[in-house]
Amino acid sequence: MRTHFCGLIDEALIGQPVTLCGWTDVARNLGGVCFIDLRDHEGIVQVTVEPDNVDVFAVAETLGYEDVLQVEGVVRARHAVNAKLRTGQVEVIATKITVLNKAEPLPFHHHENPGEDTRLKYRYLDLRSPEMQRKQRTRIRLVQALRRWLDARGFQDIETPILTKATPEGARDFLVPARMHPGEFYALPQSPQLFKQILMVAGFDRYYQIARCFRDEALRADRQLEFTQLDMEFAFVRERDVQDAVEGMIRDVFREVMDVELDAPFPRLTWFDAMRRYGSDKPDLRFDLELVDVADLVKDSGFAVFTGPANDPDGRVVALRIPGGASLSRKQIDEYAAHAAKYGAKGLAYIKIDEAGAISSPIQKFFSEDAFAALLAHVGAGNGDIVFFGAGAYNKTSDFMGAVRLKAGKDFGLVQDGWKPLWVTDFPMFEWDDEAQRYVALHHPFTAPAVDDIDDLRANARTAVSRGYDMVLNGNEIGGGSIRIHRPEMQSAVFELLGIGAEEAEAKFGFLLDALRYGAPPHGGIAFGIDRIAALMAGTESIRDVIPFPKTTSAQCLMTGAPSPIPDAQLAEVHVSVRKRED
Amino acid sequence: MRTHFCGLIDEALIGQPVTLCGWTDVARNLGGVCFIDLRDHEGIVQVTVEPDNVDVFAVAETLGYEDVLQVEGVVRARHAVNAKLRTGQVEVIATKITVLNKAEPLPFHHHENPGEDTRLKYRYLDLRSPEMQRKQRTRIRLVQALRRWLDARGFQDIETPILTKATPEGARDFLVPARMHPGEFYALPQSPQLFKQILMVAGFDRYYQIARCFRDEALRADRQLEFTQLDMEFAFVRERDVQDAVEGMIRDVFREVMDVELDAPFPRLTWFDAMRRYGSDKPDLRFDLELVDVADLVKDSGFAVFTGPANDPDGRVVALRIPGGASLSRKQIDEYAAHAAKYGAKGLAYIKIDEAGAISSPIQKFFSEDAFAALLAHVGAGNGDIVFFGAGAYNKTSDFMGAVRLKAGKDFGLVQDGWKPLWVTDFPMFEWDDEAQRYVALHHPFTAPAVDDIDDLRANARTAVSRGYDMVLNGNEIGGGSIRIHRPEMQSAVFELLGIGAEEAEAKFGFLLDALRYGAPPHGGIAFGIDRIAALMAGTESIRDVIPFPKTTSAQCLMTGAPSPIPDAQLAEVHVSVRKRED
Repeated sequence: MRTHFCGLIDEALIGQPVTLCGWTDVARNLGGVCFIDLRDHEGIVQVTVEPDNVDVFAVAETLGYEDVLQVEGVVRARHAVNAKLRTGQVEVIATKITVLNKAEPLPFHHHENPGEDTRLKYRYLDLRSPEMQRKQRTRIRLVQALRRWLDARGFQDIETPILTKATPEGARDFLVPARMHPGEFYALPQSPQLFKQILMVAGFDRYYQIARCFRDEALRADRQLEFTQLDMEFAFVRERDVQDAVEGMIRDVFREVMDVELDAPFPRLTWFDAMRRYGSDKPDLRFDLELVDVADLVKDSGFAVFTGPANDPDGRVVALRIPGGASLSRKQIDEYAAHAAKYGAKGLAYIKIDEAGAISSPIQKFFSEDAFAALLAHVGAGNGDIVFFGAGAYNKTSDFMGAVRLKAGKDFGLVQDGWKPLWVTDFPMFEWDDEAQRYVALHHPFTAPAVDDIDDLRANARTAVSRGYDMVLNGNEIGGGSIRIHRPEMQSAVFELLGIGAEEAEAKFGFLLDALRYGAPPHGGIAFGIDRIAALMAGTESIRDVIPFPKTTSAQCLMTGAPSPIPDAQLAEVHVSVRKRED
Repeated sequence: MRTHFCGLIDEALIGQPVTLCGWTDVARNLGGVCFIDLRDHEGIVQVTVEPDNVDVFAVAETLGYEDVLQVEGVVRARHAVNAKLRTGQVEVIATKITVLNKAEPLPFHHHENPGEDTRLKYRYLDLRSPEMQRKQRTRIRLVQALRRWLDARGFQDIETPILTKATPEGARDFLVPARMHPGEFYALPQSPQLFKQILMVAGFDRYYQIARCFRDEALRADRQLEFTQLDMEFAFVRERDVQDAVEGMIRDVFREVMDVELDAPFPRLTWFDAMRRYGSDKPDLRFDLELVDVADLVKDSGFAVFTGPANDPDGRVVALRIPGGASLSRKQIDEYAAHAAKYGAKGLAYIKIDEAGAISSPIQKFFSEDAFAALLAHVGAGNGDIVFFGAGAYNKTSDFMGAVRLKAGKDFGLVQDGWKPLWVTDFPMFEWDDEAQRYVALHHPFTAPAVDDIDDLRANARTAVSRGYDMVLNGNEIGGGSIRIHRPEMQSAVFELLGIGAEEAEAKFGFLLDALRYGAPPHGGIAFGIDRIAALMAGTESIRDVIPFPKTTSAQCLMTGAPSPIPDAQLAEVHVSVRKRED
C-alpha cells in the first residue's frame, strides 16, 4: 500500500513518485494551498496540494485530525525549509489522496494532556504522541539489547508456567479457579523463582526469561499488578560470577541504548554500610550527604530521646548536616518532621546555624557548651547549615533519616545528573517480626546464608548474613538476587527458622526439596525490573509511561474496563461464587 | 568454579589443567581404575582416577548416579578412543574431586522411561536426558531465530496485559477474582488480538510478541491450558503483504534451525478447494490421495444414501481410492468405518477389487453394470484397490472423508518424509450454527470480509468469503491470520450478523469500536503456534515434549501439584467462595 515511510522521505528522493500511508497530523489551507502534515511511525512529512489539482484539492479540503490517508505524489525540494522536521528539506506534491478511514472528532489530540484517566481510556490516542512513542521505544530497545547480549553468551530463553501453584507468601497470589478440579485453584507466579532453580537442577546451566510476574497488592505509583522482570539463573557459580556477568550486561546495554558509560566497576556497599551512611538499602549516590553517628557525643546529654537509643546496642542516634539548610523556615522544618514521621519518626530534632552564626535549636539546652560544640564539630556544621537528628531503634531510625536525606537532596538541588549504580551486598538473612514472633526472610526463603554450617546458622540467626545482593541505580533497586540454597538439609533448616514446619514445607515445597536431593548444583541468579529500568532510561517517574497498557492505582484498565462482573452461570462452571457481604 | 565445560574438552587441551563441574552420569571401577562420565549441558567427558592417587580414589569409589562434582585434573589423550563421544579422544586425569552435592537414590535415571506421569512429577530428572535437552533446545533456537528475524526487520516487541477483560467467547476464559473490586474478575487472554489491533491504531506499524495465551477447555493430546504464540500485526497491508513476509520468515527460520529448504513459494489452496480435494482445511500434502466427487455418477442409482446428498446442492458424495487397499480385511474396513464415524459418518460404503479383479461391495447392487463401470472408471479404481465413499452434508462428509484419507496415508505408508507447507485462503466468513440458529465466525469476529459493502455482506452472509488465511505444514495449522475490519460500521455489521447486539457490542468491545472511529489504519496479521512448530521441528508428536513444564491432559502440574485447594480465609480476601455441589 506504500512505497516509503513518511518520516524517511529525504532529498535523495527528489523528483521521484512515492506512495505514503499515514495519519493527518494536521491539515490546513494557507493562501489557497492545502498543506497536510502526514504522520507515520517514522515521523512527519509535508504533503502539499495545489489548487489547480481540483479533485485532490477537494479531498484535501475535507480532511480533519487523524484521518487515515494513502497519498500518491512526487517529492520536491521545499522552498521554505523546516529545520525542525527530519524531512524538512522536502515536500510531497500530491497527485492522489485516498481517505482510508475517516476519523470522528477526537476526545483529545495527542498534543494535549487531558489528564491521565482520559489518556488511559483512549490509550491508543495517547500512544500516538511523539513523547509516548519515544518512551515505549526506549523499553523495546532495552529488552532487545538485553536479549541480544544474553543470546550471544549462551543463556537459554526458557518459558515457565503462568498457571502454577499457590505459594507461602500466598496472600499476594492471584488465584484462578480450575474448571476440571472443583474447589481447586491455580495461582499466577510472583516470580519464576522455583522453576528457574528447577531448571538448574535439570542441567540447563544458564537461563533467562523476560518473565511476567504478578502481585496482588494495593498499587503504589511505582507498582503494577503485573510487571516484567529479566529473570536469570546460573549453575555452578558464586556471588561474583553472577555479579560480574550482569554488571557487564547492564554496562553494555546502557552504552547501546543510552550511549552512556557507567562506572567500572560498580561501587560496592554492604547492606550495613548502606544503612549506616545513607539510611537506605538502595542509596542514591548522585549526591554526597551522609548520615553521621553521634551516639557517643549525646549519650551523656540531658535529652532522654537521645540518651535511651545512644546507650542501647540496638539503638541509633544519627545526624544529617544539610549545607545551606539554615534557609529552611519553621514551616519547612515541620514538613521535614512530617516527612520523617511517615517513615516512623516520632520527632526530628535539629540545630540551625544562621549565616551570622546564631543558633536556634530545641535541643541545645540539653547540652553543656563544650558538648554542644563537640557535637557541631563532629558533624562539621557551620554557618548557614541545618543539622537534623534522628534517634530510636537502629533500622527504623536509619530508614527515616534516609528519607530525610532524599528529601534534602531534592529540595536543595543536590542531586546531580547522571547514573550512579552500585552493588549492595551482605544483607541480613532474617528480620525478626515482632508481631508474628518469628523470623521472616529478607530476600526469600531460598536465599543461601553466608555460613555453610546449619548449627551455626541456627545459633546466630539474628545476625546471620545472606548471600543476597541488589543492584541499585540512582536510588532504585533495579535488580535483586542471591546464591540459592542447594542442599536439602540447609533448605529445611531455613524453612524451620521461618516457622514453616516440616509438614507444611513438604506440602508446599516438596518438589523443591526433592529436586535438591537428586543432584542439585550450586546455583544463583538475579532478576531485574524491566519496567523500572525502562522508566529510568526514558526519564520518567512513572512506570505506567513505559507499559503499553498499564492499570491504574485502583487496579483497573480504563480502556477495556477490566475487571468486570461475570454472569453467575459462568462462575458456576468454574465452581465459585461471589461472596455476599455478610460472608 | 570451573575453567571449561565437560562436553567441550578436546585435543587442543591435552596437557592442560582444567576444573570441571557436572553430574556423575555414571561412575565405575574397572580393573582397579575409577572411570567417571562427568556430564554438563555441553556433554560428557571421561574422568579417570588412578588408584595411586589414594585420596581422590577413595572419593571416586563412593560416587553414585547424579552426584554433583567439581573435578580438578589434567587433560590427556585417551588410549581407547570412544568415537560415540564428542570428547572421546581425551580423558581428564583427576587430581582432586569435590562432591558439591550428594544425590539420593533416584526415582529413575533419565536413561529410563518410567512412564509419562513419573517423568512429569520429576520433570527435572527427565529434562536431563539428551533427548529432552535436544527437544527443549530446538524450541529455544526456534524462538531465538524468529526474534532475530523480526528484530532485524523493524518489528517491535511489545507486551500486552495478561490480566485483562473477559471476552465474548467467555466460556473458555480463565477468571481471576479482583481483590480491589469485590464481585469483579479479570480474565486471562485467549490471544492478544484486540490489543495488537489497538497497537496498530496507536501507530506502532509492525508489532510482534511471543505471547502466552490461555484457553480453559478440556485438554486433548495436543492442547495445553496455556500456550505460546508468535503474535504479529502489520499496519497498511493487504493479505499478500502479510503472507509474503511471514512465508519468508518461516523459510529463513527452517533453514537456520533445521537446515531445511522449504518450497518457494508455498502452494496456495482456497478453503473450498482444500475441503474438496483433501477433506480438510489443513491438508497434509506429504501424500497425494485426493477425494473425487461422484455425485453426478450416483445421483440416479438406487442407493438412497447416495441419491439424497447427490441431488442436494448442500450435499456431497465423494470417493477416495486407496491404491493397494484391497488388502484390507473385513475387520480393517470396519475400523475405517468406525474412524469415519468419529467425525460424523453414518456409514462408509466401499468397493474392493482384489488382485484378480473380483469385486466385493455392498453397494454394487444399487447400480447398473454400466453405471458401476463408469463409477470405477471415474475414480480410477483398478485391481488391488479399495474405494471408500462418503455421502451426506457437504462439510461433514468432507471432514470424515478427510479423516479417512489421513488414516489411509498413515496405514499404507504413503506419507513421505519432508516438509509440505501451504497457504489456505478464502475461508467462509461465517458458519451457520443450527443449534444456536445464528452465524458463528469461522476465524474470529474481527476478520474482514472480502467485500467492502455492508449491504452485500448482509445479503450474502451464508456464502461470504473472509480475508482470513492459514499457514499449514504437514497437516498442521501452524499459523492463522487475517486482514482485520478497520471501519467501525463494518465491525458493527459483523457483530450484528453474529448475534451480538449493539448494546452487548458496546459493553464488550466499545473500546475497539471507539478505536476504529478515531483513525484506524487498514491492518492485518497472523499468529503462529510456537509449541506446535517446535514439536514438528523436534520430531515429536506431543507438544508436552517441547514445553519445559507442561500440564497433563487433566490440567495438572504433577511436579508442583497445581491446582490445589486454598484456605477459605484467603478466598474471602478476593471475595469468592467455592460452590457447594448443590449450588
